[in-house]
Amino acid sequence: MKLIDSFGPNPRVVRMFIAEKDITLPSEQVDILAGDNRKEGYLKRNPGGQMPALELDDGSFIAETAVICEYLEEKYPDHTRIGKTAEERAHARLWQRRVELNITENMYNGFRYAEGYEMFKDRLHCIPAAAADLKAVAQEKLKWLDSLMGNQPFICGNEPRFVDITLYCCLDFMQGVGQALNPDLKNIGAWFARMAARPSAAASLHPASEQVKMRG
Amino acid sequence: MKLIDSFGPNPRVVRMFIAEKDITLPSEQVDILAGDNRKEGYLKRNPGGQMPALELDDGSFIAETAVICEYLEEKYPDHTRIGKTAEERAHARLWQRRVELNITENMYNGFRYAEGYEMFKDRLHCIPAAAADLKAVAQEKLKWLDSLMGNQPFICGNEPRFVDITLYCCLDFMQGVGQALNPDLKNIGAWFARMAARPSAAASLHPASEQVKMRG
Repeated sequence: MKLIDSFGPNPRVVRMFIAEKDITLPSEQVDILAGDNRKEGYLKRNPGGQMPALELDDGSFIAETAVICEYLEEKYPDHTRIGKTAEERAHARLWQRRVELNITENMYNGFRYAEGYEMFKDRLHCIPAAAADLKAVAQEKLKWLDSLMGNQPFICGNEPRFVDITLYCCLDFMQGVGQALNPDLKNIGAWFARMAARPSAAASLHPASEQVKMRG
Repeated sequence: MKLIDSFGPNPRVVRMFIAEKDITLPSEQVDILAGDNRKEGYLKRNPGGQMPALELDDGSFIAETAVICEYLEEKYPDHTRIGKTAEERAHARLWQRRVELNITENMYNGFRYAEGYEMFKDRLHCIPAAAADLKAVAQEKLKWLDSLMGNQPFICGNEPRFVDITLYCCLDFMQGVGQALNPDLKNIGAWFARMAARPSAAASLHPASEQVKMRG
């Protein structure tokens, strides 16, 4: 197996997931600022054009961060970050989708259609007129999540799950590009600090110092 | 286990998945036109407010169509519709996400923000200004899918998967509400006819004749 990696928040999710599970994978870097992930060589591996991807032992490629992490979880069930039973997995996946469809997808699209527009305008069908509303929806849903999670340590309860990693990497990225964490969300704020203190948070930072580049 | 069911395309996805897997589940109906899924009793079960949901044997509830079907697949692995191996599941989930994030989510939101606006305006943060672009993105990505799938029988190859059910139920619903299938998409058109001919397509229609109601 080989991780096809780059800077950016989604590849970081996979790196943080790997660090949490205490596994290592060889990796290959793709230059997304140069748009190498939108060129023919990469599109043959992943016609979606997005990063990251995972080359499997049979030579095929999978993509989509959540799919890659589900696959790694099946291959390396120790230090579970999705769940040990079908019921645990169902609850973790439920929160995964709630967080992605309500919060992180809206934040990413809000970014791509506004602050990230110059980078994304020729890569995606951007909808600049929706950017402000998408960001607003994400903030409303973060408030909803804040009220539902209360002071439990992690989004699904007492154990860290893939959804925690997904949201943490998104919020950490967004702090630098105009979608700072609302300080009124006390539960999310405390959770964010807990996530930031995990060794996997530092271990998953990209050597190319993604945040500086994206802000630059 | 009990399926919390209603009319609408997402509950139909679960019913069609169940029919494909040849299992039966008791169910309870919720009146979504009356907004019962947005009232306190239902929100205690599913704070997302969406349909369908699944009550587990331990009395807890899960929601999100894809999560419910992954759970049922784990509990009833026969007649797999996600995959028999980790690799098969990864490829099926990859297409599942590509189809949802690029096509069906955009079609549903395009509908909710336009034709469905009166029903959804007090239930969701609607973005009417984005409706036309969301529908356009879905059409672009359907064309992309059409070119990638070629004349293979199903989206992932030779076997029907959950993603086929997800896309079929969405496209069938959308035909009645302003997002008809583009007849130029020959591969998708042939695939759609194959899906429509499956016994599960008829078996999953809702007795309340969802399409007539939604068009009415």
